[in-house]
Amino acid sequence: MSDARQYFQLPTPFAMKRGGSLHGAHVAYETWGTLSAERDNALLILTGLSPSAHAAANDIDPSPGWWEEMIGPGKAIDTSRWFVICVNSLGSDKGSTCPASIDPATGEPYRLTFPDLSLEDVAHASHAMVTSLGIDKLACLIGCSMGGMSALAYMLLHPGSVRTHISVDTAPQAQPFAIAIRSLQREAIRLDPHWNDGQYDNERYPDIGMSIARKLGVITYRSAMEWNGRFARIRLDPEQREDQPFGFEFQVESYLEGHAQRFVRTFDPNSYLYLSRASDWFDISEYGNGSVLEGLKRIHIEQALVIGVSTDILFPLEQQEQIAEGLEAAGANVQFVALDSPQGHDAFLVDIENYSRAIGGFLSRL
Amino acid sequence: MSDARQYFQLPTPFAMKRGGSLHGAHVAYETWGTLSAERDNALLILTGLSPSAHAAANDIDPSPGWWEEMIGPGKAIDTSRWFVICVNSLGSDKGSTCPASIDPATGEPYRLTFPDLSLEDVAHASHAMVTSLGIDKLACLIGCSMGGMSALAYMLLHPGSVRTHISVDTAPQAQPFAIAIRSLQREAIRLDPHWNDGQYDNERYPDIGMSIARKLGVITYRSAMEWNGRFARIRLDPEQREDQPFGFEFQVESYLEGHAQRFVRTFDPNSYLYLSRASDWFDISEYGNGSVLEGLKRIHIEQALVIGVSTDILFPLEQQEQIAEGLEAAGANVQFVALDSPQGHDAFLVDIENYSRAIGGFLSRL
Repeated sequence: MSDARQYFQLPTPFAMKRGGSLHGAHVAYETWGTLSAERDNALLILTGLSPSAHAAANDIDPSPGWWEEMIGPGKAIDTSRWFVICVNSLGSDKGSTCPASIDPATGEPYRLTFPDLSLEDVAHASHAMVTSLGIDKLACLIGCSMGGMSALAYMLLHPGSVRTHISVDTAPQAQPFAIAIRSLQREAIRLDPHWNDGQYDNERYPDIGMSIARKLGVITYRSAMEWNGRFARIRLDPEQREDQPFGFEFQVESYLEGHAQRFVRTFDPNSYLYLSRASDWFDISEYGNGSVLEGLKRIHIEQALVIGVSTDILFPLEQQEQIAEGLEAAGANVQFVALDSPQGHDAFLVDIENYSRAIGGFLSRL
Repeated sequence: MSDARQYFQLPTPFAMKRGGSLHGAHVAYETWGTLSAERDNALLILTGLSPSAHAAANDIDPSPGWWEEMIGPGKAIDTSRWFVICVNSLGSDKGSTCPASIDPATGEPYRLTFPDLSLEDVAHASHAMVTSLGIDKLACLIGCSMGGMSALAYMLLHPGSVRTHISVDTAPQAQPFAIAIRSLQREAIRLDPHWNDGQYDNERYPDIGMSIARKLGVITYRSAMEWNGRFARIRLDPEQREDQPFGFEFQVESYLEGHAQRFVRTFDPNSYLYLSRASDWFDISEYGNGSVLEGLKRIHIEQALVIGVSTDILFPLEQQEQIAEGLEAAGANVQFVALDSPQGHDAFLVDIENYSRAIGGFLSRL
């Protein structure tokens, strides 16, 4: 656990959108740079489903963060100018209160007694943390993937709290293809007998379900185009192959296995289920009488940069176009960037050159 | 089991490409229409991974087949003109010898002692069945999905046996995205404790693994575009929802569950594993010194129709273009049809209007 991590105690009780409330809950966050005397240079990053608040190295925790190449002095998100905050989503087990946390009412982990989680709850908790730092208005709110949906909720539910917005590889609502993928990931976990209705422990742990869920995630986070160039039909060396029936033979299979092994046992399965379902539930059209455009038109900010990538099958480019159109219709000055990065949804973590140019350019002009 | 089904005994021993051989093996097939005296009007259909030889109703089995709307008098594949044969792939449990069949050497099911299966073996067995009917040269060979790969093997390995070819939603080699999907499907089955290294029975059967494999299949056989129009974010009625944690809530989830329930226990899991891996192994470039184009250039036919669909994520349109280019480079007169059907890879089973027009038009001009 990072010593750089700070914790913000949420107001108690913290009421959840779909009912129920949390007592004594907190969110973890990290910061980089210095808040100006005017408190007008704050930039908040809301993350995807699995990353922690450790977006980049800092003095106390020098290990590289998940967006290391993007954040730092002189980088696209320039910490010599901006006071950068990254918050771990409420419900995530990377430091925030989540289903694996102890319920103070019982002294036992919440597990499935954790209340229904929505991305609106993630947004509210993040907003409360920001205001606790004395920041009334963010200079910029950045949301990546699931965090992009949380960011839309943040701006809609807290009018006047955000000056500008950067939307990265996200969507204004979950579409059925993405719901199908996430539903199947959840099912792989739920049907693992070791999940045991959320009552697993270290001895009996749903490793298989989590592994399948992660591999399906990685398949949909990347793209066929990238893999044609990267793996083609290259075989594993004989000594790398699995010595079992139908075992791995191609490099792409070993690549997926590596991803799964790095993920399993580092992310709480129940927390994963809650965040996954929260993503399915998100729909900005709930705030626009069933219209995505009308929902987005309730968000009032000065400027936005909306980035998407043509190879993203989970959050297709058309959904980024919707966000750009909606924010523009609401009066924002919007820049829309459609990239052709081959890496699919994960391009924002890999194609640093193009994302840096877009994000750095936008921020430098503020 | 259909009484319309006929069986062809393969020559014994039947040697397999990757080693081993089968004794007393057979393939199941069905026919429609009448073979001409000159035996020059025969049309063979090679199927995808899961369909049987029952492609359409016939006198003995009037139940609808899997390509019912395409095959019959006056239809695109006009049985008043063509003698149509559909063969069940060697290794499939829909009537042909497969891992669930009894090994005559032991009196027990083969299960994992079945020799390695390749699509070249499927092609050889199909060719032997066709020649047994006294047909030296097919007027047309149609291959759909996996059957399209088997068809390429058939034409390459049996020069002069095919006059014209229709290639439907297929590929000249398995690419890493498709390999990754199939590998994960196999893993869901392999990791199901009830699979038990292939030694399942009706009491302990890998239902969960097969269900997850099928759902992943359906997700990749269709397209996000189709589902946006078809399911959007429509919820199930409360009484249709699963009464369990993280149970189904959206229509798209119930649609996948319906597909899985119709599949599980109707397809032998070991046969599925063998055919799935055979698809991964297929690579026409093996016959062209590592070049797909050179491999395809070894196929000599008069004419071809190559059809693909832009929404297919499993067999992308670029792979159909490769097939068209290769067959043309080999001297065939090739028509390439790129459709925009929203249904993805499965469009050939659903968008009958457009596939009928292309296939019917091509056949009528022969």
